[in-house]
Amino acid sequence: MQAQLIALDWGTTSLRAYKLAEGGQVLEQRSLASGIMQLPKAPRIIGGRECTDGFELAFEEACGDWLDAQPQLPVIACGMVGSAQGWCEAAYRDTPANVATLGTSLQTVRSLRGVDVHIVPGVIERSRLPNVMRGEETQVLGVLQNLPGEASADLLIGLPGSHSKWVEVADGCIVHFDTFMTGEVFAVLSEHSILGRTQQRGGSFEGDAFDRGVQVALSADGETGPLSTLFSARSLGLTGELSACAQADYLSGLLIGHELSALANVQRRRRNSVHLPSIILIGNTQLCARYRRALDACGFTRVTLAEQATERGLWQLALAAGLVSSTASR
Amino acid sequence: MQAQLIALDWGTTSLRAYKLAEGGQVLEQRSLASGIMQLPKAPRIIGGRECTDGFELAFEEACGDWLDAQPQLPVIACGMVGSAQGWCEAAYRDTPANVATLGTSLQTVRSLRGVDVHIVPGVIERSRLPNVMRGEETQVLGVLQNLPGEASADLLIGLPGSHSKWVEVADGCIVHFDTFMTGEVFAVLSEHSILGRTQQRGGSFEGDAFDRGVQVALSADGETGPLSTLFSARSLGLTGELSACAQADYLSGLLIGHELSALANVQRRRRNSVHLPSIILIGNTQLCARYRRALDACGFTRVTLAEQATERGLWQLALAAGLVSSTASR
Repeated sequence: MQAQLIALDWGTTSLRAYKLAEGGQVLEQRSLASGIMQLPKAPRIIGGRECTDGFELAFEEACGDWLDAQPQLPVIACGMVGSAQGWCEAAYRDTPANVATLGTSLQTVRSLRGVDVHIVPGVIERSRLPNVMRGEETQVLGVLQNLPGEASADLLIGLPGSHSKWVEVADGCIVHFDTFMTGEVFAVLSEHSILGRTQQRGGSFEGDAFDRGVQVALSADGETGPLSTLFSARSLGLTGELSACAQADYLSGLLIGHELSALANVQRRRRNSVHLPSIILIGNTQLCARYRRALDACGFTRVTLAEQATERGLWQLALAAGLVSSTASR
Repeated sequence: MQAQLIALDWGTTSLRAYKLAEGGQVLEQRSLASGIMQLPKAPRIIGGRECTDGFELAFEEACGDWLDAQPQLPVIACGMVGSAQGWCEAAYRDTPANVATLGTSLQTVRSLRGVDVHIVPGVIERSRLPNVMRGEETQVLGVLQNLPGEASADLLIGLPGSHSKWVEVADGCIVHFDTFMTGEVFAVLSEHSILGRTQQRGGSFEGDAFDRGVQVALSADGETGPLSTLFSARSLGLTGELSACAQADYLSGLLIGHELSALANVQRRRRNSVHLPSIILIGNTQLCARYRRALDACGFTRVTLAEQATERGLWQLALAAGLVSSTASR
């Protein structure tokens, strides 16, 4: 089957490359650590000249051989590659942002090998506390493509990660979203705070400890907020009530529990209803499993997982941009 | 004036030494970086033998010359020096803990030079989420000594720091306290997270940015909690609404605001009253000034600062232990 598109999901710490055939079918995929904050440095010859530009180097690494074989393949990319610190800035689109038409606003950068890379713009919500995303808008599109239109009214799309996003959609538009820095806070506390000193990591997932953390966040004790309950990851260790190998998952549950507890409160207020929306989760499988577990404890009873949202979204955007042709008529 | 006591406030990252005369008057004081997590390593001769023990080395550094001059001076110490990772563990006293009588439970360790160091026990509250303190109990005593007994009913003693403590007292006893890891969370986020990358630090205090952070925490936007509002320290920068040199103080205000907002809610619930207690703050002057500013914004209208709480508390404990004699009759 002939490749029709190279699709790149190029974030802060990773770069995933997909070679897609008609209908967006994945022929091959690769995962590299060449996110925009950790680009390769070793010079190489590109287009006959020595090159030291990190973006060019990462691009060659990710799909140079695919382009050698098929130089006319179009290339599309989403994520932090379009940020001010990226390869070429693709200005944010404002909410309400119609994700299906983002493909008509791609920003182009010409690579040294002469191939154009089409970069998807991020989305900004200019509220009192502004919110921004880059990459998630593409995943949201990938999910919406497979949903009946009316399903989105009672839906919240969750994208767990270093900075998790919770996205509300209406009529194919991103109308509102919240960001929680839960993943990054967990990482810096585990690596650099006193809480990490007594954590023994690397064992299997301690589900009971995780659930306990979630329950603490939801309990009356949780009303002091995460800045306070965090300390229990240490003090329960001091009193022998939490073993060293359970502390990391307890902390994970505690932070995710605080995130989802706050999210549930805000959702009830925004919807003026005690009922919570359906959830579709997109992201890393293990992380989504944690969120699913905690969502259930927080009263979100309808939770499903989306697969291949990124590659599907990128394919749709390439279609909208005319980089590939539709197979709908076949 | 003759010295009567050496008093040490020996924490995780610092060691403060006081030479006290009768009535607890401070004759001399020193501040060293030799907290229990960063003890000196260079060997020295102590008591005729080469010594490499970090606690002995720090002790010599802090007050060896004072003891050379007056070998019979008693020594008392509070703080993390009495923890399991300290010089000698002084078991916690349970709440309700009468702070005036902690002096009768000192733990003794004999130093190489033959001088006994008397270590003050910490306090533990064995609630569902246990809470512990070491050092703060001594400061609370130092404050209570100067207060009329009935004042403590409507009082909350605040000890801002890496792990701030909020202490409720009744009849001279610590009956309840909360811990917030606000200071440490601020430090690790500023040093190790994406928020630090755009912070330009080292300038003067940006009071407006700090106040803005406090207000965000108190606003409807703050209902998503600190894990979410944190991201605004970045997104307001991206939209040009918060300058690089204002971001650290904004983040500081945001975190302290979330701490105090949660504290106010919990206090109202515990006291079953809309009225908030009086506050006495103990600690670093600049940090207390930040807390005072934020407390005012959060509705705590009666706030005072305590001076010399540590040295006064240590003197009182030494009196209770019979290490020094009272001057009350003079």
